[in-house]
Amino acid sequence: MSNKKNYSKLSVELHKKFGGKMEIKSVCLIETIDDLSTIYTPGVAEPCRIIAEDKERSFDLTWRGRTVAVVSDGSAVLGLGNIGPEAAMPVMEGKCLLFKEFGNVDALPICLDTQDTDEIVETVVRIAPSFGGINLEDISAPRCFEIEAKLKERLNIPIFHDDQHGTAIVVVAAMKNALKVVGKKIEEVKIVISGAGAAGIAIAKLIMIAGGKNIVMTDSKGVIGSHRDNLNSAKQEILSQFTLDEVGDIHSAMNNADVFVGVSKAGIIDKTDIEKMNKDAIVFAMANPTPEIFPDEAKAGGARIVATGRSDFANQVNNVVAFPGLFAGLFAIGARSITPEIFMVVADAISSSVENPSEENIIPSPLDKSVAENVKNAVINFSK
Amino acid sequence: MSNKKNYSKLSVELHKKFGGKMEIKSVCLIETIDDLSTIYTPGVAEPCRIIAEDKERSFDLTWRGRTVAVVSDGSAVLGLGNIGPEAAMPVMEGKCLLFKEFGNVDALPICLDTQDTDEIVETVVRIAPSFGGINLEDISAPRCFEIEAKLKERLNIPIFHDDQHGTAIVVVAAMKNALKVVGKKIEEVKIVISGAGAAGIAIAKLIMIAGGKNIVMTDSKGVIGSHRDNLNSAKQEILSQFTLDEVGDIHSAMNNADVFVGVSKAGIIDKTDIEKMNKDAIVFAMANPTPEIFPDEAKAGGARIVATGRSDFANQVNNVVAFPGLFAGLFAIGARSITPEIFMVVADAISSSVENPSEENIIPSPLDKSVAENVKNAVINFSK
Repeated sequence: MSNKKNYSKLSVELHKKFGGKMEIKSVCLIETIDDLSTIYTPGVAEPCRIIAEDKERSFDLTWRGRTVAVVSDGSAVLGLGNIGPEAAMPVMEGKCLLFKEFGNVDALPICLDTQDTDEIVETVVRIAPSFGGINLEDISAPRCFEIEAKLKERLNIPIFHDDQHGTAIVVVAAMKNALKVVGKKIEEVKIVISGAGAAGIAIAKLIMIAGGKNIVMTDSKGVIGSHRDNLNSAKQEILSQFTLDEVGDIHSAMNNADVFVGVSKAGIIDKTDIEKMNKDAIVFAMANPTPEIFPDEAKAGGARIVATGRSDFANQVNNVVAFPGLFAGLFAIGARSITPEIFMVVADAISSSVENPSEENIIPSPLDKSVAENVKNAVINFSK
Repeated sequence: MSNKKNYSKLSVELHKKFGGKMEIKSVCLIETIDDLSTIYTPGVAEPCRIIAEDKERSFDLTWRGRTVAVVSDGSAVLGLGNIGPEAAMPVMEGKCLLFKEFGNVDALPICLDTQDTDEIVETVVRIAPSFGGINLEDISAPRCFEIEAKLKERLNIPIFHDDQHGTAIVVVAAMKNALKVVGKKIEEVKIVISGAGAAGIAIAKLIMIAGGKNIVMTDSKGVIGSHRDNLNSAKQEILSQFTLDEVGDIHSAMNNADVFVGVSKAGIIDKTDIEKMNKDAIVFAMANPTPEIFPDEAKAGGARIVATGRSDFANQVNNVVAFPGLFAGLFAIGARSITPEIFMVVADAISSSVENPSEENIIPSPLDKSVAENVKNAVINFSK
């Protein structure tokens, strides 16, 4: 690993040097008294008056119409867990920069000093007049489901939980290309999902919208099936939509699987588990930073295609190909909500951004800025 | 008025063209996988870990240490009144740009969908981990006093209500120079303040800190004195600190006054009121956009020095000479609170930024960016 950069050290140096990573900028000049009188008093009173008469105008007369709040309570940050709102800030600032860099969407990090579901909902509702959309981030399951549902009910702006839907979109986009490469159909394959948190459940839901039927999902206590009497409501609900109903654990679930999707933890499967899978096995091992199984071991077990969450292996599953273009599109059409159909539109735009899918190329590079443009255009076209 | 620009029209055009006035910018490059790995995962985990161990580090490892929330409930916006949070946004965006342009302070507009005192306090407390300071803006009296007091109690970052303290600072700075020009002492003059809202009460308090003693204050029902039985707690408290205790109205109060400070409404005094004042009268007529009395009429009544809130007359009282430098200084020293002593330090820095005070020049130009630098340095030096 001697050729690997020490990103931890580089990151701390960068954050210290500037004091974080982002800043505010004016889009107009402020040099003369005329400029001041236009951007501020007395001129500014007129856009205020117009919005006071019709609140909808706040979307085109202020930055609201192109601005998303990246909201976290710091309860489930990266692989670091519940580190609190202050410590979540570097991640949220990074997220905001990705929004801007890839989607030209203005995003603000809002880290909340509460982990109470209702207080989070109340707080977001109260700050909502300043934003055109809400991106929930790194909020632990199952609270994240309730928070998202309540906000959708109370606000008329798009509410998106990236850990759920962003991950689901990119996994389904990559899975479609992977299945194309190995010549299998999503309707026919057996898919094992390890991890039943926010991401796992959203992935299962979007796979079903994409046509997938044979899903087995596991959590830390084994396969989620009708034999289980300790399931939270989110797990019960998703189970009720499955056609398969197995018993056992992650190791037994791997028998005759075609696709493994890991959003759980480091090293929970090994080569012998991959050997139980069908020919041309597809493995998504996305635990961060250490995957459920490393690509070389998965390949040694017979996997044909392997994807991870890491930038140092082929096929990096990175939400950045989804959320910037999605919000850019939503803002372009003045969307006031998000539906699961939009998720599939985005997933399709991402998979077709890969021209010739192959084992090492089922998903666009996170650096490819044309993907966000494709996604944005797909969202705009869908609304027509 | 044919040579006057139509700022209302210009402002609406500007706001439409860009969709508001501000945007987010990265302070670092995002071009390679190395950049992504440094600003975001996996590198970003390390600053997160450091802050998780010591929350104080959020001030130097994120943009928190240089970022202020400009918080409003839209209840008292300019002269427009209670126009609500959406309609307040153009003013708050403008304010944020002034913070950046003059103080290099990053500021975010947060407009709240509640006008309940406790809900505002709760909301600001919950979003506080993202900010290094709070600037309350355009929140009506007397709620603004309670909100400010409660936030000071609950948060360990500077809380500033610009409509109170910013205005008070600039008025006292200008008043010191005006008194110097006419050769009077603040301890000896009679000062009439018209308006007992947020600004009026803060001005009275800071005048007393500056040494002023003889203050008469009026509200819409007349002089605030011990004969009144309808005073809210803020008015009662300020009255208890006054040495003068008159009866009557604004017109009787003007007898033998040396200084008039108007933070009330258009045209409530006229030439005959100015004629009742002592020789070398000083008039601050700051109602917006139409002053309590226009400069030409005040001069015709015998006023020697007149200031307004407008950019089209001499001596514009504009808070922009105070708040950007104040927060730049507070952030530079890592201040966790604000005290009234700091307000006097800032007022002194502003008045001494005018090299040779004269009738038409008692206060620096709002375009003079060196003032913010002077203010910032004064705050830094005061802390040493």
